[in-house]
Amino acid sequence: MKWISGGVTAPIGFLASGIRCGIKKSSKKKDLALIVSQSPCDAAGAFTTNQVRAACVDVTADHLKDHRAQAIVANSGNANCLTGEAGRENTLKMAKAVAERLHLKPKNILVASTGVIGKQLPIKKIIQSIPVLIDGLSRKGSEHAAAAILTTDRTAKEVAVSIKIGRKNVRLGAIAKGAGMVEPLMMVPRHATMLCFVTTDALITQAALRGALQRAVRRTFNRISIDGDRSTNDMTLLLANGRAENKKIVEKTKEFWTFAYALESMCLSLAKSMIRDAEGATKFVEVVVRNAASKEDAQTAARAVANSSLVKTALFGGDPNWGRIAAAVGASGSTVDQKKLMIYLGRELVLRHGNRVQKPSAVLNRIFKRRNIRLLMDLGVGKYSTVFWTCDLSTSYVRINSAYRT
Amino acid sequence: MKWISGGVTAPIGFLASGIRCGIKKSSKKKDLALIVSQSPCDAAGAFTTNQVRAACVDVTADHLKDHRAQAIVANSGNANCLTGEAGRENTLKMAKAVAERLHLKPKNILVASTGVIGKQLPIKKIIQSIPVLIDGLSRKGSEHAAAAILTTDRTAKEVAVSIKIGRKNVRLGAIAKGAGMVEPLMMVPRHATMLCFVTTDALITQAALRGALQRAVRRTFNRISIDGDRSTNDMTLLLANGRAENKKIVEKTKEFWTFAYALESMCLSLAKSMIRDAEGATKFVEVVVRNAASKEDAQTAARAVANSSLVKTALFGGDPNWGRIAAAVGASGSTVDQKKLMIYLGRELVLRHGNRVQKPSAVLNRIFKRRNIRLLMDLGVGKYSTVFWTCDLSTSYVRINSAYRT
Repeated sequence: MKWISGGVTAPIGFLASGIRCGIKKSSKKKDLALIVSQSPCDAAGAFTTNQVRAACVDVTADHLKDHRAQAIVANSGNANCLTGEAGRENTLKMAKAVAERLHLKPKNILVASTGVIGKQLPIKKIIQSIPVLIDGLSRKGSEHAAAAILTTDRTAKEVAVSIKIGRKNVRLGAIAKGAGMVEPLMMVPRHATMLCFVTTDALITQAALRGALQRAVRRTFNRISIDGDRSTNDMTLLLANGRAENKKIVEKTKEFWTFAYALESMCLSLAKSMIRDAEGATKFVEVVVRNAASKEDAQTAARAVANSSLVKTALFGGDPNWGRIAAAVGASGSTVDQKKLMIYLGRELVLRHGNRVQKPSAVLNRIFKRRNIRLLMDLGVGKYSTVFWTCDLSTSYVRINSAYRT
Repeated sequence: MKWISGGVTAPIGFLASGIRCGIKKSSKKKDLALIVSQSPCDAAGAFTTNQVRAACVDVTADHLKDHRAQAIVANSGNANCLTGEAGRENTLKMAKAVAERLHLKPKNILVASTGVIGKQLPIKKIIQSIPVLIDGLSRKGSEHAAAAILTTDRTAKEVAVSIKIGRKNVRLGAIAKGAGMVEPLMMVPRHATMLCFVTTDALITQAALRGALQRAVRRTFNRISIDGDRSTNDMTLLLANGRAENKKIVEKTKEFWTFAYALESMCLSLAKSMIRDAEGATKFVEVVVRNAASKEDAQTAARAVANSSLVKTALFGGDPNWGRIAAAVGASGSTVDQKKLMIYLGRELVLRHGNRVQKPSAVLNRIFKRRNIRLLMDLGVGKYSTVFWTCDLSTSYVRINSAYRT
């Protein structure tokens, strides 16, 4: 696997575009993105598990029922969520406007939105801008599309890789966004405001495509949390147009694992970028749980530590107050026996079988002053492990999220 | 029911004391409290459900096995949690030192601690101070005891009421603390760092005492959350010495409900005080859930909204961004149908059956600028309701909790 440039337009046959159509108040920020394959694609999607869902989530899930699609249109600045029947119609109008200009069927168009909840889309502005959006399509358009899906993100997130399937080069590309209201828990095939759009020119069966996506989402996006708030709009979409002309990838083969690993690597890179770019974040934190009683327990304990306001503020302050970590694990609901509990801050063991291990404050303080911090809890009650990624809770996070909607 | 003064020393036969023994670094703050009944008491306790528990939780639960006790000794500034066998021995030493001086058995002494996790108690200082603490016992000592159990709290919390049982006046008094790491979920008879100590001179059966405490805790302390972090030390203790000489209160009688209502009213008042005094809080927020599919669903939805960082920062900013409330409810795991969901900010309906109800921004902004805010979610899928209390998430909360331990 080789990291390459080009984002979603790195795979053969994909074009992208990103423009400003006026959804966001800022006169400089792009807010409408389009990704198009020059030929029909097999497609898969993963959607938020939030029971309150944006119109685009329902419509896109519906359009994916035949596992086929050819384009993704996405807006930022407005989530089109809790907007009723009018909201649903606006999503359908976006799909239709793109379909007509591209001579495709509306059901081949996938729609995504991110932004404020409870406001109707400025649908006229969007429809009027579709021709300009389509005119802008290019083989170098990935960065524009990546910019157009951002909300409070500080940087655009683009990756691409090249792998070998048989003797053929196969490419995968992706763009993503996500800076707040991020604790995705996506299911295939159901329901981010993290958005991630992946393209590939691999030739692959629909089942293998869904399998690879499900696995990648479960092991990457579903293992990050910025603030523990799960969006109504989280969505990961994957389009495969087969233009690499490789021997068709089927599940459980060596080629499948090559593809799945490449997809997971890209998603992990993007997931970690989201944490580094999280609202107000000053730290990148890896939370490892070992020897939990079950897979679910490992996840629950890791998530509890990652989402604890007290752990997050201690991380922000650079205060190695590991008692808060222990308290979060104990309250998580996972099976915990404090007589078996071990906690490491970085490589320093601070709690052994429920007993404090005396370490010089200077050593622990140094670990917590770093930008990258690793917390490890060994529950000692089973054999299941996991890893989870999060950030600190800063005064900036509060300032960003307490400000009036703009 | 009449609100009276006197706190835990309002009931007949109770003495209290509070001194500084040097656990806290500050040379002004009290850190050791004692409440003593002049005659033996029936006793009940509710303890944290956190699986990581302080030594005092285990020891006090053990001392309560015979449902009898006569004194409560409590320190602030150190939680004596994750301190191993030495921590347990220190708790026992505290009980023993108090017992010896008072000519009681150690098992009649209940011990509570609150403060930093993972540090051994300065047990010598504590033991040396016990004689001074006991010398300080007085019928007016409640306020000193209330001061001595505080950590980051800004104000001491004391209440007392007088009720009639038959022709007799019966008194109940309580002191409490809790400003951070507060999302109690206590069980009787098992497991705050909220602490609440209640005294009464009622004559009441042990079963009625436990029943009344369980109900009061479930309906008050277990319905508040400051930061969603559940402490290793949460504890509510109730001592009843029978000195009012009323006709003995037994369960399911009119007298029981009079007693239970008085106890619940006191606990509710203290629980609300905790929210008003929460770390960095600028708002008092009542979260109401109506028409949930089950009791648990109602609680889960209310708790999810109360603990959402995005909802809490919007409350801090005075930004009526109700989309975050909807997202939190939808992600809570409770049964939600967005087509039935209704949301009220104060008395203003903003979401009706999943559709936004247009209201002037000025009206909604005014509601969110108040110090007291009520949020109501009608799930429309069942008949169960609940109410929950919380506060906002401010830049001060982050500053307080990111500061180095002092």
